Amino acid sequence: MWKSALCRVVLIDDTDYPGFCRVILNRHEPEMTDLAVNERQAMMRVVFAVESALRHLINPDKINLASLGNVTPHVHWHVIPRWREDRCFPNPIWGLAQRTDVALPAKIDLSILRKALAEQLGEPIVSRERSFP
Amino acid sequence: MWKSALCRVVLIDDTDYPGFCRVILNRHEPEMTDLAVNERQAMMRVVFAVESALRHLINPDKINLASLGNVTPHVHWHVIPRWREDRCFPNPIWGLAQRTDVALPAKIDLSILRKALAEQLGEPIVSRERSFP
Repeated sequence: MWKSALCRVVLIDDTDYPGFCRVILNRHEPEMTDLAVNERQAMMRVVFAVESALRHLINPDKINLASLGNVTPHVHWHVIPRWREDRCFPNPIWGLAQRTDVALPAKIDLSILRKALAEQLGEPIVSRERSFP
Repeated sequence: MWKSALCRVVLIDDTDYPGFCRVILNRHEPEMTDLAVNERQAMMRVVFAVESALRHLINPDKINLASLGNVTPHVHWHVIPRWREDRCFPNPIWGLAQRTDVALPAKIDLSILRKALAEQLGEPIVSRERSFP
């Protein structure tokens, strides 16, 4: 959805949590405090830009932010829109499911999300793979 | 453990997760993007100071950071030291327990944690309750 020299924003294809994004550090570091102070700020600016874009686009009941990395100790942030009627609410998405067969009405328009991030963060850098004709 | 005009750091008395702290916004707002940009930065600076202090003091295998607020939609950050042999690892602490009867050796010295936070963040403000003789 967006990319800088520091990190990238990826939309997770999770039907239980439409709009679920990850902000992933490009280089490898396990913890936020392994980054320089200005890099931490830059990364959180991206996390909050995603939160802001999702709130405007799909208006969830809550946003959950988390940097865990127990399985993959590489800095990445989960930005998870939550609805009162979603699969696990009010539990974290890693907790016990509260209901089944949930189909949330929220639809993510990829081009609108990309545009909302570029407006807040500037144009993304184009990755080498994508610049191939 | 520490307090400013914006937020406060509280040590949670959780024997399963020694060193578990919360950083709690003083005024009421549900989401990080409800704060001004400089307030978000100031709050994250406190979160990262707690992470840094805990890494130095008790050297956990991983730090988990999370701002969820599904039950209490008031901005607060969980800063959770994790060990490979803790109750739920590698699951989030809200996920399924993996083992029982865990007693982690990490001990938190309150005065050392307070000092580590003050060194990074400056002296805490003294709350009115505490200033009573």
